[in-house]
Amino acid sequence: MFQTFDVSTDPSQGGPRVAALREATKAEGLDGYLVPRADEHQGEYVPASADRLKWLTGFTGSAGAALVLQPTAIVFVDGRYRLQVRAQVDMTVFQAGDLVDEPPSLWLARHGRAGMKIGFDPWLHTIDQVASLRRSAPEIEFVAVERNLVDACWPDRPAAPTGQVEIHPLKFAGVAPREKLALLAEAIAKGKTDLTVLTDPSSIAWAFNIRGSDVPHTPLALGFAIIPATGRPQLYMDARKFDMEVKAYLTQLADLRAPDNLLPDLTDFARAGKSIGLDGALAADRLRMAVEDAGGAVVRLEDPAKLPRATKNAAELAGARDAHRRDGAAVTEFLHWLSTIEPGSVDEIQAATRLEALRAEAGRKAQMPLRDISFETISGAGPNGAIIHYRVSTATTRSLGAGELYLVDSGGQYSDGTTDITRTVAIGTPSDEMRRHYTIVLKGLIGISLMRFPAGTRGCDIDPIARHAHWQAGLDFAHGTGHGVGSFLSVHEGPQRIAKTGTQKLLPGMILSNEPGYYREGAYGIRLENLIVVEDARPIAGGEIDMHGFETLTLAPFDRRLVDIALLSPTERDWLDAYHARVLDEIAPLVDDATRAWLSDACAPL
Amino acid sequence: MFQTFDVSTDPSQGGPRVAALREATKAEGLDGYLVPRADEHQGEYVPASADRLKWLTGFTGSAGAALVLQPTAIVFVDGRYRLQVRAQVDMTVFQAGDLVDEPPSLWLARHGRAGMKIGFDPWLHTIDQVASLRRSAPEIEFVAVERNLVDACWPDRPAAPTGQVEIHPLKFAGVAPREKLALLAEAIAKGKTDLTVLTDPSSIAWAFNIRGSDVPHTPLALGFAIIPATGRPQLYMDARKFDMEVKAYLTQLADLRAPDNLLPDLTDFARAGKSIGLDGALAADRLRMAVEDAGGAVVRLEDPAKLPRATKNAAELAGARDAHRRDGAAVTEFLHWLSTIEPGSVDEIQAATRLEALRAEAGRKAQMPLRDISFETISGAGPNGAIIHYRVSTATTRSLGAGELYLVDSGGQYSDGTTDITRTVAIGTPSDEMRRHYTIVLKGLIGISLMRFPAGTRGCDIDPIARHAHWQAGLDFAHGTGHGVGSFLSVHEGPQRIAKTGTQKLLPGMILSNEPGYYREGAYGIRLENLIVVEDARPIAGGEIDMHGFETLTLAPFDRRLVDIALLSPTERDWLDAYHARVLDEIAPLVDDATRAWLSDACAPL
Repeated sequence: MFQTFDVSTDPSQGGPRVAALREATKAEGLDGYLVPRADEHQGEYVPASADRLKWLTGFTGSAGAALVLQPTAIVFVDGRYRLQVRAQVDMTVFQAGDLVDEPPSLWLARHGRAGMKIGFDPWLHTIDQVASLRRSAPEIEFVAVERNLVDACWPDRPAAPTGQVEIHPLKFAGVAPREKLALLAEAIAKGKTDLTVLTDPSSIAWAFNIRGSDVPHTPLALGFAIIPATGRPQLYMDARKFDMEVKAYLTQLADLRAPDNLLPDLTDFARAGKSIGLDGALAADRLRMAVEDAGGAVVRLEDPAKLPRATKNAAELAGARDAHRRDGAAVTEFLHWLSTIEPGSVDEIQAATRLEALRAEAGRKAQMPLRDISFETISGAGPNGAIIHYRVSTATTRSLGAGELYLVDSGGQYSDGTTDITRTVAIGTPSDEMRRHYTIVLKGLIGISLMRFPAGTRGCDIDPIARHAHWQAGLDFAHGTGHGVGSFLSVHEGPQRIAKTGTQKLLPGMILSNEPGYYREGAYGIRLENLIVVEDARPIAGGEIDMHGFETLTLAPFDRRLVDIALLSPTERDWLDAYHARVLDEIAPLVDDATRAWLSDACAPL
Repeated sequence: MFQTFDVSTDPSQGGPRVAALREATKAEGLDGYLVPRADEHQGEYVPASADRLKWLTGFTGSAGAALVLQPTAIVFVDGRYRLQVRAQVDMTVFQAGDLVDEPPSLWLARHGRAGMKIGFDPWLHTIDQVASLRRSAPEIEFVAVERNLVDACWPDRPAAPTGQVEIHPLKFAGVAPREKLALLAEAIAKGKTDLTVLTDPSSIAWAFNIRGSDVPHTPLALGFAIIPATGRPQLYMDARKFDMEVKAYLTQLADLRAPDNLLPDLTDFARAGKSIGLDGALAADRLRMAVEDAGGAVVRLEDPAKLPRATKNAAELAGARDAHRRDGAAVTEFLHWLSTIEPGSVDEIQAATRLEALRAEAGRKAQMPLRDISFETISGAGPNGAIIHYRVSTATTRSLGAGELYLVDSGGQYSDGTTDITRTVAIGTPSDEMRRHYTIVLKGLIGISLMRFPAGTRGCDIDPIARHAHWQAGLDFAHGTGHGVGSFLSVHEGPQRIAKTGTQKLLPGMILSNEPGYYREGAYGIRLENLIVVEDARPIAGGEIDMHGFETLTLAPFDRRLVDIALLSPTERDWLDAYHARVLDEIAPLVDDATRAWLSDACAPL
């Protein structure tokens, strides 16, 4: 089991821990201290050793911050965590802040005292974040503190993770690390820099063709790398993560250095007059400080691995197709099982557990094991489905009742690819209104699936296509249409996305989710999600301009009982019939007899 | 007649004029001089006195620049003027530059000599443009020269225009100037400034409810205004433009000052420590210099009249509807006339002349005279229709031949509104391919017309809707879908637009064009254009979020012979039938009997 459904924390720890942090803050001559949720790699998950926000406050959400002042302590969360924060945090110790409308910098600008000294750990904030802090609250003095003051108060703090590193086989990676490192070196030279520091473990995993196990659900090995324009890279990673084979492999590619050497090495490079590129949106401000303290100047350079990692090569796409067939078979067996249960007899946890077991079984059968789920399963029945970032727990689980909708958003990590799929299923007989809303969401998904678009089109240009049917009906959904997805890496990968803020051009090989939704608060949620890949531009009969399009990776039926055929155009209906025919064709051979019989009906033309 | 079709200039003047300018440049100790097309108001049209680019080079396009160095002289134009520049300019004197890929600043950065001194007139470049010049070519010294060196070489330079100013009646303006000036004062105070300078004559026309006649096709009175946060505005305009009534009217609203007083007054304000707001995208760099020379600092403040001007009030919208009915009747009579001509018997100039005469006649009949056409009519038959910014001239006019498409893009200025309409008509029998392309363009226009969208939607969010049918067919068009339109003001008005660059939110009352196209080089061009208004958000039955939509202003039939019904969805067909029914209903009472009979057929349901 990769999932745990007990998310209880102990709010009563908040009081003494805040008191200890206040002491440490005072001892440093500071008026307050800032505790972000991020670690020095700015990833979605942090290891237990870096989960300082949770240790201090009890809050376990994936975004947030705490600001501890002498009389006041504030925990900042966004809209989706308003309820959770009150359940997990001692609200007599902390007051609640708004991470979006009044984040710490703005809070300090409005309520802080001019000249106040606020400490922060420059490893945990990016260059851009620190610049923005100082710009937003110019009257506050933000002081970078060398030792982390939370760690100083945390006697039983877990050790940093030493998850084993494995080699990601060339048959899945498609390109050898030497070629990738050469590509990076070229980009670094083109950016008129001598070297850059990779701080995103996804970039290191991609560049060296390695995977790790330092954080949940994403196969990352936490570390840093210095990549020079010419010469040998240096990889900063705890050597306990390497077995002999991995060590030998990596030694061919880079100098292996202990993490503690990063700052001294960077300082040496800066002193030697090297031009050092850093990605302001990713790199810790501590790195900028090291360069500037040594008399160097930081050159802004976007992480050169970002775009090559996002544009998957043929081997990665072949792997993704295999992973999606395998994963689709598991999901299809799950959907079949759902069709057999008695309404009210199964709860959200049981359903999520069943789905994980089916994924694991499908992986075993194919000898391509489920390495992890790709994120905590969102398993929401009835009104729980309307909570966009719902995470099922023992406290909230409800049974899948008659006449309800059940929304399940889940994915798997396999060596050949990362999956992410959402289906919404009727338990018993759905209402006409549910069918209308489901069909509107489906029209959005089909609209994106059918899109052809010229080179240069950005995610923001096509996002409204997924909302067109919603808007015409006076509806909308409060999230982007799609995020990028990694290749046996993070299920949320940049820079590609389909959203109002998606200004990255869509390039061939990029994998994206296509997941419009509709949420009726207190009643039900609908989300439908397929992963899609940007295809090469190709000619269209009778046309003049080669157009890109999307290949659909995800293979599992939609719930035909929820489709109102009258609301589909002939083109949309044709798409759905063709998709179902393909699902039947590719998935039927992989599932058990009972599922196969059910699938044949589920995929019949409308 | 507001149109002239003779656009010939005398290229042979280029040699001696460039020689004179070189002398003047040398006398100032400069290595070169920059001659933009703009005047100090940055409008689409410049008066003859400010048409320095034309005087120097012969080039009459609406965008361009010249850079005159000692051995070299370059005239920079964009893609649409590549051919025209060779016909109008002596290419032994000038070489051609690319205004988009290598504008003057980039040209100098690449080919200039470090330390070179390039003069420019700071009245003719905005604050942002000068900053960008200096940023793009840091090795070049750009020198602001007080006297314009072209003017110094131009003995018979026309006097600045003194077109008569008229009061724009309250019944058309809808809001009294005192209210508008109070609104501006409020915005200026809110921007933490003491005053701003309006440099855009459209803003002055809007704020004071006046119109002028200093430039072609747009009823502007060139001038400046200083609007203070508190106290009395000052209007800088040549007093010869005012009759007694206008003078009395304006004296109630502002101190009337001669244009020469602007700089001394601004200097006084800066010396007095006033905080001075300027719009960097509009205001001449000369104003920034004046403020800074006096020890003041410029605060960036967007022209506060821009958004109120763009969001038309009820009276302006009522006027627009009246103007469009009147204009639609004239266009309908023109379309009927086109249906009666013998193919090959009429040329583009004759057609444009006829259309203008019909507009003038419709204005006379309604006692709301055609004040001007709103831009030079684009009247393109066959391959000329494929030239997006075609302007018919005696040199290029061709007859409207059998089996060809004829594209006509035109508009009128009436006291109650500005119109802009494009229709494409088959002369004789169109090919199936023409019909397919026409229907694709029509689908784009209908797609925008039917859009519903939530508050916050920007023009860039809906632009792809107008291209969706194109993209699916492997086609596209190389211009934005729509521009803003003024109210008896500029036919091209910002900030609203439907285009990839249209980041302004669409607000109720904004008038926009909706004009997708398709251009087959050397064969034919198709463009269909209606003006539309953003409507207030309103509920949709069965929906949850109030949605904006568009009201269509333009009333004239589409050519049903060019519509391939099989390519339209039922919704699209319903829209077209309903639109035609409305055209028949509103236009039939306004046209002659023969046109009415024809219109009845033209507007019959498909």
